[in-house]
Amino acid sequence: MAQEKAPEGKAPEGKAGAKPRRPRAETPKGFRDYFGAEVTERQDMLSAIAGVYRLHGFEPLETSAVETVEALGKFLPDVDRPNEGVFAWQEEDKDWLALRYDLTAPLARVAAQYRNDLPSPYRRYAMGPVWRNEKPGPGRFRQFYQCDADTVGAPSVAADAEICAMLAGALECVGIPRGDYVVKVNNRKVLNGVMEVAGVLDPADPDRFAAERGIVLRAIDKIDRLGPEGVRALLGAGRRDDSGDFTKGAGLSAEQAEVVMGFTTARRDTGAATVARLRELVGTSALGAEGVAELETIAALLDAQGYGPDRILLDPGVVRGLGYYTGPVFEAELTFEILDDKGQKRQFGSVAGGGRYDDLVKRFTGQAVPATGVSIGVDRLLAALRAKGRIGAVAEGPVVVTVMDRDRMADYFAMAADLRAAGIRAEVYLGNPKNFGNQLKYADKRAAPVAVIQGSDEAARGVVVLKDLILGARIAQSATLEEWKDRPAQVEVPRADLASAVRAMLAGGGL
Amino acid sequence: MAQEKAPEGKAPEGKAGAKPRRPRAETPKGFRDYFGAEVTERQDMLSAIAGVYRLHGFEPLETSAVETVEALGKFLPDVDRPNEGVFAWQEEDKDWLALRYDLTAPLARVAAQYRNDLPSPYRRYAMGPVWRNEKPGPGRFRQFYQCDADTVGAPSVAADAEICAMLAGALECVGIPRGDYVVKVNNRKVLNGVMEVAGVLDPADPDRFAAERGIVLRAIDKIDRLGPEGVRALLGAGRRDDSGDFTKGAGLSAEQAEVVMGFTTARRDTGAATVARLRELVGTSALGAEGVAELETIAALLDAQGYGPDRILLDPGVVRGLGYYTGPVFEAELTFEILDDKGQKRQFGSVAGGGRYDDLVKRFTGQAVPATGVSIGVDRLLAALRAKGRIGAVAEGPVVVTVMDRDRMADYFAMAADLRAAGIRAEVYLGNPKNFGNQLKYADKRAAPVAVIQGSDEAARGVVVLKDLILGARIAQSATLEEWKDRPAQVEVPRADLASAVRAMLAGGGL
Repeated sequence: MAQEKAPEGKAPEGKAGAKPRRPRAETPKGFRDYFGAEVTERQDMLSAIAGVYRLHGFEPLETSAVETVEALGKFLPDVDRPNEGVFAWQEEDKDWLALRYDLTAPLARVAAQYRNDLPSPYRRYAMGPVWRNEKPGPGRFRQFYQCDADTVGAPSVAADAEICAMLAGALECVGIPRGDYVVKVNNRKVLNGVMEVAGVLDPADPDRFAAERGIVLRAIDKIDRLGPEGVRALLGAGRRDDSGDFTKGAGLSAEQAEVVMGFTTARRDTGAATVARLRELVGTSALGAEGVAELETIAALLDAQGYGPDRILLDPGVVRGLGYYTGPVFEAELTFEILDDKGQKRQFGSVAGGGRYDDLVKRFTGQAVPATGVSIGVDRLLAALRAKGRIGAVAEGPVVVTVMDRDRMADYFAMAADLRAAGIRAEVYLGNPKNFGNQLKYADKRAAPVAVIQGSDEAARGVVVLKDLILGARIAQSATLEEWKDRPAQVEVPRADLASAVRAMLAGGGL
Repeated sequence: MAQEKAPEGKAPEGKAGAKPRRPRAETPKGFRDYFGAEVTERQDMLSAIAGVYRLHGFEPLETSAVETVEALGKFLPDVDRPNEGVFAWQEEDKDWLALRYDLTAPLARVAAQYRNDLPSPYRRYAMGPVWRNEKPGPGRFRQFYQCDADTVGAPSVAADAEICAMLAGALECVGIPRGDYVVKVNNRKVLNGVMEVAGVLDPADPDRFAAERGIVLRAIDKIDRLGPEGVRALLGAGRRDDSGDFTKGAGLSAEQAEVVMGFTTARRDTGAATVARLRELVGTSALGAEGVAELETIAALLDAQGYGPDRILLDPGVVRGLGYYTGPVFEAELTFEILDDKGQKRQFGSVAGGGRYDDLVKRFTGQAVPATGVSIGVDRLLAALRAKGRIGAVAEGPVVVTVMDRDRMADYFAMAADLRAAGIRAEVYLGNPKNFGNQLKYADKRAAPVAVIQGSDEAARGVVVLKDLILGARIAQSATLEEWKDRPAQVEVPRADLASAVRAMLAGGGL
């Protein structure tokens, strides 16, 4: 049993004989904590989106954060360990469990598990954190929020159109005005039809040319960065970048490449014109024609409801990354510019995406179940609103009741209770009251608008002193006191008038 | 390498040659899913409690669900693996991570990590799921919600009094009326003082008699079930139960036991009388006297704010389980009776608890940081409200717009949009519209109050038919149609009047 002993001469940490070191007070790598307004702003956004989803007949669903790895489908092919993209652990009974990495996989599990009890179609919304076991980076965290809506059991693309319209409504509801966003719609079937015409998809042998199609997909996805010539090179023999590195291309002939390039530029001013152009491109491909017809139906439904291309448009350039989409795909982009980390202007980009995935529930039941849905990246959307200055102002803190005499804590608590009864957020200072300056510093750190003060003298006379901390801060910043002379930053009021006097001070009108 | 091969003749599952079996669609053992009103009722409760906490000046904090096992303090003594009570896994860099098992340990970590930036005292609230790797049982889940409020950095028991008063306010705010709950307050220092008098605590050697004190604690905790004689037996030589099993006692003499028994019956009608009795019991113990003085201060503060014993009372019978409490402890119990699984009446019992824990932050920093707080078991509280019938009624579903003609989906969507614009929850039927009976069954499953119907005939005449499904259900249950004759369950209204007519129907007043 020699192997089981600790290496000689090296005492294991924390064991007898070694002084146990103190634990580090650290958030785990790639995770973060959220304080104050960061929490309430997100909560408000989730509530607003949930309100839109509910109004459309979607029902809330909250699954557990933990799923079996088997249900998540996250075992690596031919390996007995889960995918490294998930946080997973093995139970004593040998089952592998993992934290959910999105809200779609749990929905597929629920749709299969409760298929006899749920209404069909089943419209549901879900919101909460998801976890990704990925390398963290700046602004990339391993836990973040999603807010999804999906319709399971509706084969018609009317369900996809509904999701797109609802997504536009949700964005406007959280404070992204019309003109600052666009929902782009495409269809995987159209893309596959174009592939068929270009000769890199054989309906009789779907696995053939899979590698070439992968290169084509990735090339289209990079068109914003590489430009048409770069994409054309990748569709052909390959592309050498500025550093001299060579990326192998899909090996398409010039004619084949031209078909694909035509697709990337198929967007026209109206949905009808885009549809007509796509119909030319997919030629005789049956799958492509089906996809074009679906896009046409979606566009017609949205047009009839008044969703013009200023809000929702057909855009063949949208290629969503996930492999499981089978039909319409959509993506919401914010169109306004922000300054990036390097001070460069850039479009904010994608904040939501989704599409139709008709095969996810089938994994469990063997029967195809049509499904479509959208996921809003709530944390990115919050970042966008913050970048535009629409949220994130310093939140006003509570009124702070200071403590002049520690034997009269009950009086101070009664003052705070009176304020709360009037709906005013209030707290009593609970640190060591000895140094009054510390109490005012505390009130400042709490962003308190008003401090309430009552020493023994004031108590004897039945009054309290109110200090207007917001006004005080303004006076301190101002060069001249002249403009403030009619608004005293500190007033004495009868104890009985405490709540009404504080309310007047909070309203900013003086007394 | 023979050991690494699969046993001969047994092909590993899911590998080449074996048909991969379908994953099971199952919630992991001990976890559950929440649907519809279960989700919104909990969200409403959390919002209501958060509102009370905020009004008292507490700030939201949301930590990540994942912590280092080191920060949670969940390594087993002298073992390199985490406590089995947590869900934990080892990262590639060898760090152990785990799901948080409560909201207090993450607060202690945050209070240490951000100690230079947070206001002091720091009042914070937190809400969210916590995870326990324990054997699940009926009604016992491995993921459940907590909703905590804590004050870090306030040494005064005024902070404890504030938490107790706020807890009472939170319970009333979520629908537990005065009289249906009581917040019980005790103090660990008093209990230790009594132990000192009874001779099972030696201030000069705190570890001595630790086993005896454990037996005493557990005995007091069982007084409701065993009665005074049973507890007395456990304090002495031991107790033989009805089945003949013997439990070893603490070995106290009759006089020592009498001191402890006096403590369990020390509760009097008023806080002042209870304090007086406790002061007798702790005799000359300095720690005990300190605890009694603290209870006296808490009682005085609460009395001054009008919290009589109908809401908050001193109760020496409260012995909270957690080892880390160092001063006041409190527990909220619901006093009404419910029927248990066996149909027996019993008090609902504890729904919240907390206390002072002055040593948790010290683990990280080495410096003592006073802290006190409460945790509300939101899922238990929801169960209580459900048992009383105060929540859990079947929620009304959306208005369902049926589909008579699948070529006119745009018209049906426009109807749903009109209803939503009027603030009415509405959806279009998105299943296969061929069988109209299925559409009405769907509306029934959705608990839809109204179905909207428009065939080609109605469309030509510019009208829609509204079916009052609630009224229809009542008529179906009623023996006589007589009483309903003035309220038609189905009416035809102009298309332009759709929203106003539905609203009138929802109001129950007919048209």
